[in-house]
Amino acid sequence: MILEVSISPLNKKSLSKYVAEVIRIFEEAGLNYELNPMGTVIEGEWDQIMPVIKRAHERLFELGVTRVSTLIKIDDRRDKKVRKSDKVESVKRILKEKYLDK
Amino acid sequence: MILEVSISPLNKKSLSKYVAEVIRIFEEAGLNYELNPMGTVIEGEWDQIMPVIKRAHERLFELGVTRVSTLIKIDDRRDKKVRKSDKVESVKRILKEKYLDK
Amino acid sequence: MILEVSISPLNKKSLSKYVAEVIRIFEEAGLNYELNPMGTVIEGEWDQIMPVIKRAHERLFELGVTRVSTLIKIDDRRDKKVRKSDKVESVKRILKEKYLDK
Amino acid sequence: MILEVSISPLNKKSLSKYVAEVIRIFEEAGLNYELNPMGTVIEGEWDQIMPVIKRAHERLFELGVTRVSTLIKIDDRRDKKVRKSDKVESVKRILKEKYLDK
Repeated sequence: MILEVSISPLNKKSLSKYVAEVIRIFEEAGLNYELNPMGTVIEGEWDQIMPVIKRAHERLFELGVTRVSTLIKIDDRRDKKVRKSDKVESVKRILKEKYLDK
Repeated sequence: MILEVSISPLNKKSLSKYVAEVIRIFEEAGLNYELNPMGTVIEGEWDQIMPVIKRAHERLFELGVTRVSTLIKIDDRRDKKVRKSDKVESVKRILKEKYLDK
Repeated sequence: MILEVSISPLNKKSLSKYVAEVIRIFEEAGLNYELNPMGTVIEGEWDQIMPVIKRAHERLFELGVTRVSTLIKIDDRRDKKVRKSDKVESVKRILKEKYLDK
Repeated sequence: MILEVSISPLNKKSLSKYVAEVIRIFEEAGLNYELNPMGTVIEGEWDQIMPVIKRAHERLFELGVTRVSTLIKIDDRRDKKVRKSDKVESVKRILKEKYLDK
């Protein structure tokens, strides 16, 4: 499955320090991830990803945050294997074909 | 923590049959939940809620759905214990006080 | 269409004061809304709802907030008219029928 | 402000055709956007972005979709000007400094 997650402290103005810590945890866990300006897209299985998200979510409390807001959006397709790179490429291919048609 | 979850089949037009199945799973698991028109709000701990959400998410595939979209939004506050009923009541109390002031 | 919105200040710990202000704006605008512990569900048309959400989002900055996080989730169905109350009732009806079957 | 949007047909299995159409509309409107596997991140002002999202959302109905699910997540910071590229770079800089420290 492919999911996007954002884990944010609610009582801090600057988030990048916390996001960096979250990314460090994803990195150490060996997740296949990709950071974008609004969240992190991860590809893998539920049992491989969710415990790592839990650890990252908990880590913010250890750093002194008192309220954490975490948003997880899962796209799980079982009729065919889709990788996160496929999704973007497939859209780009359609756009390209359309422009060539004109 | 308090979270809201919605688990939707992507290739079906009518969702209520699937939402009913998800709710049945939440009910059987003994979760403290509350259904609204856009999702289900649940109160409890990560390890108590997440395995149930996983089971409900998997159930849709068993029912023949090939693509499932699940959105989980977590609000976790540790400086004081907040229940899901408190959040709505606290807003209503402020609104009431304001109107009395006028 | 039916949507759920949450408008939160990012650098404040207690949110209820701000949520109350948002609800006051929805109320004054005459929106058909329903507050739950994680957001507000609204029924209506895009051009009727979106300017009010913008006003509420802007209001938080006027109250001294410097960073606002707003999440809007829209469910728009055009093949039949669905009201927000229908969605919950339709799920409850299915659950009831299933239990009667047993 | 920076936002992420995903606009999906609910009764179709393959989404890329529809995502391509949405991207074409963003492109024609001259938005500053960036596609990722789970959504599109856009930088700009509310009145510049929201009418384009509405147009893209409506376009799916014109293409025969009967139910559309749109998720918009806004991060609006007013104490300093932040660009979408800054957010990722700022996290990467912190990660780099941490590793150099060791």
